[in-house]
Amino acid sequence: MSSMEEVETEETVTCLHITLYHPCQEEKQVFRNLKFHKRERHRVDEVAKFGRDSNICHYNLMDTRVSRVQFTLQFFRQLNSSELGFEIKNMSKKTKLIVDNVELDYLNKIDLPWKCIIRFGDYQFLMQRQDGESVDYFETCFELAQASLLQERHLPSLQPIPECGIFPSLVYSQAVNPVEIDENDL
Amino acid sequence: MSSMEEVETEETVTCLHITLYHPCQEEKQVFRNLKFHKRERHRVDEVAKFGRDSNICHYNLMDTRVSRVQFTLQFFRQLNSSELGFEIKNMSKKTKLIVDNVELDYLNKIDLPWKCIIRFGDYQFLMQRQDGESVDYFETCFELAQASLLQERHLPSLQPIPECGIFPSLVYSQAVNPVEIDENDL
Repeated sequence: MSSMEEVETEETVTCLHITLYHPCQEEKQVFRNLKFHKRERHRVDEVAKFGRDSNICHYNLMDTRVSRVQFTLQFFRQLNSSELGFEIKNMSKKTKLIVDNVELDYLNKIDLPWKCIIRFGDYQFLMQRQDGESVDYFETCFELAQASLLQERHLPSLQPIPECGIFPSLVYSQAVNPVEIDENDL
Repeated sequence: MSSMEEVETEETVTCLHITLYHPCQEEKQVFRNLKFHKRERHRVDEVAKFGRDSNICHYNLMDTRVSRVQFTLQFFRQLNSSELGFEIKNMSKKTKLIVDNVELDYLNKIDLPWKCIIRFGDYQFLMQRQDGESVDYFETCFELAQASLLQERHLPSLQPIPECGIFPSLVYSQAVNPVEIDENDL
């Protein structure tokens, strides 16, 4: 019992929930090298790389249409604020990266909104930030969507999400920050 | 002769000229692990790390007052522009990083102006970007200043600089981009 009393207060860690969709995800298995429903922890000085080359990219997309490094994510803190967030940079010379409606060319970067859809080629990724306190680590967590994310923007928000789980059919409308919902609201 | 005619047109490479100053640079030899007057080339997907830990940092500062990683630089292209530049991020929990007059706390980032002075602790670095065309590589080049950079802001610009050399006594007033100067102007 006393060991529990003595340990340092546990910090929450900012988590970027990423819900993936590709129209041929079942046939081509482009996401087969990703771990789903599992939070992966990174040090804040790591740059998370997504792409085809598994020697360079921690997150590997198995698709010859994907660039060796497609895009990178870095963790940062907003100037004059305690808000933590992610910056995305397009590392593909061939393919634009679209963040909501902003087009990024090669080497362009932008701060990710708290919730957004990024697109490149046929890929759609819904990115939702779950805020945490840690300034030493950040986490990522993947889910797979069953249907295109672009058609689901107007679904109503129905349920609070589990610890690491975004229901695929509700992905775009769902809040990631923990929200208390009264039973009467359901 | 024909081999010269057949090779691809050589591209210029963006170079960040960094002029360093520390009040005890001669006694403490804090910069002894850096290579001076030599352009070092990096791939654009590399993040240049400066700090005390030589296992992590390509640019190693030999000083126990420096953090293991003090700051990082990444190369990027401005949105809706062909302008290439550098973003700096403070990776020190203990020491603020000051870019001209903007204070960066831990994990804060900012795009470096074309020419600026960054400071942390007793360190002063003058950063001057020499624009190039390459979107595959960037370069860095170090010089050592003989005197504090902060006292030299108002010196007149006298001479064009050599390929990789910033005259220490003129560092702040000097333009890095090649400028043609008429003899009558000297």
